Amino acid sequence: MVTLRDIALATGLSVATVSYALRGDSRVTAETTRRVLCASRRLGYEGNFSARALSVGRSHIISVAVHDLMLPFSAELAARVSQAALERGYVAVVRQTKTEPSLERSVVAGEPGLFADGTILCPGTLQAHAIRRASTRPLVLFDGNPRFPVYDMVVTPGLAGGFDAVSHLVDVGCRRIGVIGAAYRPLVKAAHAFDMTSQRVAGCLKALRRAGVEADGSRFVGTGNWYADAAAAAVRERIEAGWDFDGVFCMTDTVALATIGELQRHGIRVPQDVKVVGFDGIGIGLEQYPTLTSVRIDFDDAASKLVDLLVERIEHDNEEHSPVVLTARHTLVPGESTGSGAAGVRRRSAG
Amino acid sequence: MVTLRDIALATGLSVATVSYALRGDSRVTAETTRRVLCASRRLGYEGNFSARALSVGRSHIISVAVHDLMLPFSAELAARVSQAALERGYVAVVRQTKTEPSLERSVVAGEPGLFADGTILCPGTLQAHAIRRASTRPLVLFDGNPRFPVYDMVVTPGLAGGFDAVSHLVDVGCRRIGVIGAAYRPLVKAAHAFDMTSQRVAGCLKALRRAGVEADGSRFVGTGNWYADAAAAAVRERIEAGWDFDGVFCMTDTVALATIGELQRHGIRVPQDVKVVGFDGIGIGLEQYPTLTSVRIDFDDAASKLVDLLVERIEHDNEEHSPVVLTARHTLVPGESTGSGAAGVRRRSAG
Repeated sequence: MVTLRDIALATGLSVATVSYALRGDSRVTAETTRRVLCASRRLGYEGNFSARALSVGRSHIISVAVHDLMLPFSAELAARVSQAALERGYVAVVRQTKTEPSLERSVVAGEPGLFADGTILCPGTLQAHAIRRASTRPLVLFDGNPRFPVYDMVVTPGLAGGFDAVSHLVDVGCRRIGVIGAAYRPLVKAAHAFDMTSQRVAGCLKALRRAGVEADGSRFVGTGNWYADAAAAAVRERIEAGWDFDGVFCMTDTVALATIGELQRHGIRVPQDVKVVGFDGIGIGLEQYPTLTSVRIDFDDAASKLVDLLVERIEHDNEEHSPVVLTARHTLVPGESTGSGAAGVRRRSAG
Repeated sequence: MVTLRDIALATGLSVATVSYALRGDSRVTAETTRRVLCASRRLGYEGNFSARALSVGRSHIISVAVHDLMLPFSAELAARVSQAALERGYVAVVRQTKTEPSLERSVVAGEPGLFADGTILCPGTLQAHAIRRASTRPLVLFDGNPRFPVYDMVVTPGLAGGFDAVSHLVDVGCRRIGVIGAAYRPLVKAAHAFDMTSQRVAGCLKALRRAGVEADGSRFVGTGNWYADAAAAAVRERIEAGWDFDGVFCMTDTVALATIGELQRHGIRVPQDVKVVGFDGIGIGLEQYPTLTSVRIDFDDAASKLVDLLVERIEHDNEEHSPVVLTARHTLVPGESTGSGAAGVRRRSAG
């Protein structure tokens, strides 16, 4: 049977301090409480913890919820956030929600047995008010709705990224530009909708307008979702109906890779016949020939911003301040898929 | 201030039962204890839990540790295990260890604040005895050393998979077969080493021998690691030194994709000039042209086996039994990269 004395010996603290810490006494610092909890857990202590000890003692665990670890975007974000958390002394534990409301709610509400100090959530279905109702802990959102922010948030640069993607296609000479993975909506509507697709479309339409190229609803190829299957099927259908694009902007890199594969399979050459730009900059776009030109989200920047915002909230939990919305940095990385990739393009160390 | 009465109201239990549950009294069932812990956490109860309550009450959390979420293999395994856990009423929380011994140790020992019922670990650096010393909870390994199993384990079919990969190359007519991602070692040595590489190499050598093709150490192209960069660099070097393979077996799909990309970049056609087989069957091999022929590990099967073994251990924690070693199912999935992919090859719904 493990006693307070054993914990005191293991930590080099006095029995009294150990006892105070387990009770959650406010005279014991968070760091000491953490040491005591850690030792008691390691030794298999069977006595009592106060809920307060578990709370003030801080677990230094951050709960991270992404949509689907099968998607490279989710997996890469989770990887970078894990790394950023580690560098700040926190452990990230990752879950996938598959955008199921019940799973999103349980992430936000916390599981019994998981005492996280705070949560980073990529929201899927749950609306801000439902998140607020369920939440018990500091929370930061990734790619939530930035129009009425209830929480601190980091967003991907949809508008600026879409603009850069299509400006690049114009710059390399494309005029019959298609969009894969989004339905058409007029600029004025797209610019005022804050979902990811609309923002990327609005950026695209802005770039077309600036270049004096007329936007045309029939050039938007919807795919239903952004999985490779759906994208390949939509592109195949379009090829069979008659392909007349000299450049395409794909809503994600996964969509872009599936598009390139389908074009090549039908003998349409990339970049000679069609130039292709993706969006995300996930590692997998850089392994193939042609390497993918993409709006590369700086995942390290996004992860640092997410974790910094959350740690700030954790460490100043009681202070009210208005929600902060930050945008992750991005760069258009030219690749072989728009004929602009030099051999010198730096490959990333990602599998 | 939240009281026992509030928890009783929220759960529909009596105050006495709530009190017993929080003390970890053995007369309260695990399921009831779990309901009480859940409600107390949700309501923000600040009183005491006994460590025993947290332990008998079962958190229904499984801690899952993979190498690196940037690797599709790790991410896909984590995704499938999360799904398998959910189907059995457990929540998987995922961490990446980057095969750092200190992170592996803390996964096995448990974090303060994370009361998982058990752990699924992809071991990297930590040896079995170190795992055993640190472990406090039921544990199942994925791809550990199956020679002296200390824990239940699921392994990938390295030997059988390597054999199938190279037999397929022989079947489609290849005779100058190269191996990318592994150094040569004679069959007798490879067959008795249980690391992943040796097992795959042993399978390859067995297939060559069966086909009467002489194994040749100079046909093994080491890459240092299995990241895309390293593989592309090694292939580039080999092309510059003179490429004379008509078929290659790549140690992973990531290595295979990088190999195909580099070959195409140098005007060497796949599958016309060289046929390529990968290993893993991760989703990303199916988006491109040519689609990748690969030894596809059945990740759903691996995940089910891992979670079933762990849940068995969790629910019968005190019973001694010898470690079980199971092998994940695999299939050789023919793709366009060996000229054997029909248009009817089923694409998987993975991004």
